[in-house]
Amino acid sequence: MSMRRDTLRWNGWGRLGESAGLSREREHWLAGELSRRLRHPLSPPPPPVGIDQIRLPPTKLSTEIQAALRGACGDAGFSVSVLERVSHSFGRSLPDLLRLRRGDVPFAPDAVVFPASEGAVASVLRIAAEANLAVIPFGGGSSVVGGVEPRTLRGQAGALSLDTTRLDALVRIDRESMTATFQAGIDGPALEAALRSHGLMLGHCPQSFEYSTLGGWIATRSSGQSSSGYGAIEDMLVAVRVVSPEGVVRTLPAPRSATGPDLNHLVLGSEGSIGVIVEATLRVHEAPAVIEDRGMLLRSFADGAAVVRDATRAGVRLAVMRLSDASETALFEALRHDPARRFDVSAAALSLLRRMGYGDGRCALIYGVETASRREARQALREMLRIGRSRGGMPLGASPGRAWRRDRYRTPYLRDWLLDRGVAVDTFETAAPWSRIEGVRDSVVRGMQRAAEIHAGAGLAMSHVSHSYADGASLYFTLLYPLDPSNDLLQWESIKREVTEAIVAAGGTLSHHHGVGLDHLPWLTREKGALGLAALRSARATLDPRGLMNPGKLL
Amino acid sequence: MSMRRDTLRWNGWGRLGESAGLSREREHWLAGELSRRLRHPLSPPPPPVGIDQIRLPPTKLSTEIQAALRGACGDAGFSVSVLERVSHSFGRSLPDLLRLRRGDVPFAPDAVVFPASEGAVASVLRIAAEANLAVIPFGGGSSVVGGVEPRTLRGQAGALSLDTTRLDALVRIDRESMTATFQAGIDGPALEAALRSHGLMLGHCPQSFEYSTLGGWIATRSSGQSSSGYGAIEDMLVAVRVVSPEGVVRTLPAPRSATGPDLNHLVLGSEGSIGVIVEATLRVHEAPAVIEDRGMLLRSFADGAAVVRDATRAGVRLAVMRLSDASETALFEALRHDPARRFDVSAAALSLLRRMGYGDGRCALIYGVETASRREARQALREMLRIGRSRGGMPLGASPGRAWRRDRYRTPYLRDWLLDRGVAVDTFETAAPWSRIEGVRDSVVRGMQRAAEIHAGAGLAMSHVSHSYADGASLYFTLLYPLDPSNDLLQWESIKREVTEAIVAAGGTLSHHHGVGLDHLPWLTREKGALGLAALRSARATLDPRGLMNPGKLL
Repeated sequence: MSMRRDTLRWNGWGRLGESAGLSREREHWLAGELSRRLRHPLSPPPPPVGIDQIRLPPTKLSTEIQAALRGACGDAGFSVSVLERVSHSFGRSLPDLLRLRRGDVPFAPDAVVFPASEGAVASVLRIAAEANLAVIPFGGGSSVVGGVEPRTLRGQAGALSLDTTRLDALVRIDRESMTATFQAGIDGPALEAALRSHGLMLGHCPQSFEYSTLGGWIATRSSGQSSSGYGAIEDMLVAVRVVSPEGVVRTLPAPRSATGPDLNHLVLGSEGSIGVIVEATLRVHEAPAVIEDRGMLLRSFADGAAVVRDATRAGVRLAVMRLSDASETALFEALRHDPARRFDVSAAALSLLRRMGYGDGRCALIYGVETASRREARQALREMLRIGRSRGGMPLGASPGRAWRRDRYRTPYLRDWLLDRGVAVDTFETAAPWSRIEGVRDSVVRGMQRAAEIHAGAGLAMSHVSHSYADGASLYFTLLYPLDPSNDLLQWESIKREVTEAIVAAGGTLSHHHGVGLDHLPWLTREKGALGLAALRSARATLDPRGLMNPGKLL
Repeated sequence: MSMRRDTLRWNGWGRLGESAGLSREREHWLAGELSRRLRHPLSPPPPPVGIDQIRLPPTKLSTEIQAALRGACGDAGFSVSVLERVSHSFGRSLPDLLRLRRGDVPFAPDAVVFPASEGAVASVLRIAAEANLAVIPFGGGSSVVGGVEPRTLRGQAGALSLDTTRLDALVRIDRESMTATFQAGIDGPALEAALRSHGLMLGHCPQSFEYSTLGGWIATRSSGQSSSGYGAIEDMLVAVRVVSPEGVVRTLPAPRSATGPDLNHLVLGSEGSIGVIVEATLRVHEAPAVIEDRGMLLRSFADGAAVVRDATRAGVRLAVMRLSDASETALFEALRHDPARRFDVSAAALSLLRRMGYGDGRCALIYGVETASRREARQALREMLRIGRSRGGMPLGASPGRAWRRDRYRTPYLRDWLLDRGVAVDTFETAAPWSRIEGVRDSVVRGMQRAAEIHAGAGLAMSHVSHSYADGASLYFTLLYPLDPSNDLLQWESIKREVTEAIVAAGGTLSHHHGVGLDHLPWLTREKGALGLAALRSARATLDPRGLMNPGKLL
């Protein structure tokens, strides 16, 4: 098993013993700063319950079915322990954490299976079909949209969580074609380590990189922080194998085809609804010799967006581009503030910046290159500097980018720390054409602020652009608000609904890369149209006529 | 109507009065050269019949249905004339031309409709559903795989060809997002002209560019000669509207989404089976200021393929790359030979080339840049030269590329000219990972040669690479063989079957960009798998439950 349960937090982000890495002074200072910025008293919730305090209903599986599943997956591949059942009950969204901390587990799987081969996956689906059990494919379990919560349809006799993390082998490398085939339960670090030993890399770095799997990336149409350089998961996928209840769907490894609709695109975004993704062939790259990150300050979000847009269109070979709006920039500045220092250099710098026109609207842009040679890196950074300067950009050197790269997988730990202090953090995201980017951003930030004020008394809303295309970009939103511990789920739901309405009303897509899950389902028909969705549901019904696979969700 | 029927050849390629543009001397010389190379006597077929010699069965449509269709499309939008019915009976494959020249039209539509609005398309589908008529969407009619031939299912009362070419408007341009929305019946030249008046361009240049439509490009997953620079049609497509018998399917214009499977990819490659594509939004580009083409000679196909692969992976900003194998290179050299000149300079040059190691295996590579500035053009050409030289490439300057660009839409006219002289030309194409490119090419060329020798006594087989990707490339094959006028269809069918078997057996995809149509249908299950195909068929059945749309083909 590539992810050892006993090393992971069952009710929070990531690994035991890891944290956001703030010093005690910094923690203290940040807590004060946040309550000052939120201008609202905070009510820390009761401390999280222990796993031993959680009572689950007994498994609904008969001893025969349990024996059959044990037979298919081996003793090590079957569990009805409270820890495994609870760990497979949720993803890692804000409402997931709220419920886990309270020990409130309304939907637990009746068992968790860990098949170690394609044959074992097929056996589990056969047993589930006979016993009328729902099957929820589970990779890293990092869904933030309720994608892995085990729901059952009326009449289903129970639910299995099918954990794919034992399917974690490198199957083959085709060096000449620069492709690699993996079993789909491999996680980000193991996949990159396997490639690195061949001098190769994939370059898919979602925020969940350390705790998510290849199969999960494909199932959710994931996109990583280096999408400017390496594309999103659909750009990487060459071919795929899926075990569905009716048999195997596989696609041919070809660089391109015109043989009818592309079946890879029925699998990409299928969110567990058509079967279990067991294997995938991916485009890989030579590991870069040079990695360099830079920061740049812009006077306004509009200037920053123009730089990102122009650089994308000009084909500047950047791996990463990330533009923070003024609020997020201000928070980063605050996080970089060192309360231990007697003389705060940033205050002096700030006043100078203001005089140069980088006032409250200033936005930080981080960008990075990953290239084979210094020459290529220099060239891309030079091009970027030229584009940036034409929009009034001021170079900030290497340190902001370095800080971002160092901390990029640690930010989610901050969420647990904030929750402990009574601050809820939720994130929203969308994508829109360039002509609507500012309009969508403004509407959604206003919507977040309004929703937080109504339902939480206050809010701190931020946004950034982290994926850009010739025709548009993603928008990622972060909202901090005072938690109401007596009413936290309803509070979250109200805010989520209002912000999602704001996104959809402004013409943004429901999700750029989080997926649909349970949380975006109510808006899906508006985005895809009833008829288009019906067509997808028919395709699903052919692969899974009894509706075993991740029921009650996408299709 | 953007394509005036009276300016087009009804039984051959393209426009009346246009030709391959060979002088009389050159024609004479080429005919001799071909019969010398084929080493086989040629039997010119009887001259093509006139349109007035073709007898079609009367339309099966009642006067009521004809009146209803006239009501939906207007008098100018309805025809039962022999010319329109025959012109909508075939695409432009070799067997299509063979039958047209003989006046053998086994499947003619009972009427042709030319709806001029989305509403009119919907009305036609409603009338067809009520009257139980098959509907075959028809754009430019340039299919070379039998994609537009009107077939009906048992029990259907007749067939309508639905010509989309009156849906030819530019709907809107979003300059900030660099996208343009068109009605889908617009043809290549009209689309580029509309964009050019805004300083923009699309860059989609299939061989059929002058006689194919946007909707056809999407329906067939088309890819053009400048795919290195601008991508294939799926890279250009942002959003689409399709009128299906059950209603409208439309997608949201977003640069990217993670809201379940991408419905654009159900439309791309649907080949008329789910409805009529009426509108599409596309990514467009600034029209380039600089267009430069170059030629390079390599000592072997393997060297050339390595140059194409390395340049693609290095991201050299080329719009076009086209590598001919040794046979195709030799034919181009012959076509450039000028029989009017007393002193043939090429013979002397050839002997020099041989001494430098560019012998019978030499391959010509043509590549071109389309850039905003001379500086970018120079940089890309310099990078390409460096890569080429590292594989023994010899620069040939600008003239081979210029000749290719000038003649690129004229080559299909040569096919008619050759048919007149008893030489059949068929083309095959596939794509494969780089690790299999040489193996696939060798197997298919051997397969073509063997099939031609068995079924035609002789053959001249050639290939080129014209679309390249980081992980693989396309392979395009041309086969010339002596026509057997007494048995031409069976002769074609036998060769087609054997070559397609060779492609599939070698692991190539059934089609890189021609599509499936009738001709590749027998192999489709092997490529996509029975279950994957069944899922697509279910999706189709939801949009077209009675099977009206282009029946008997893809889905």
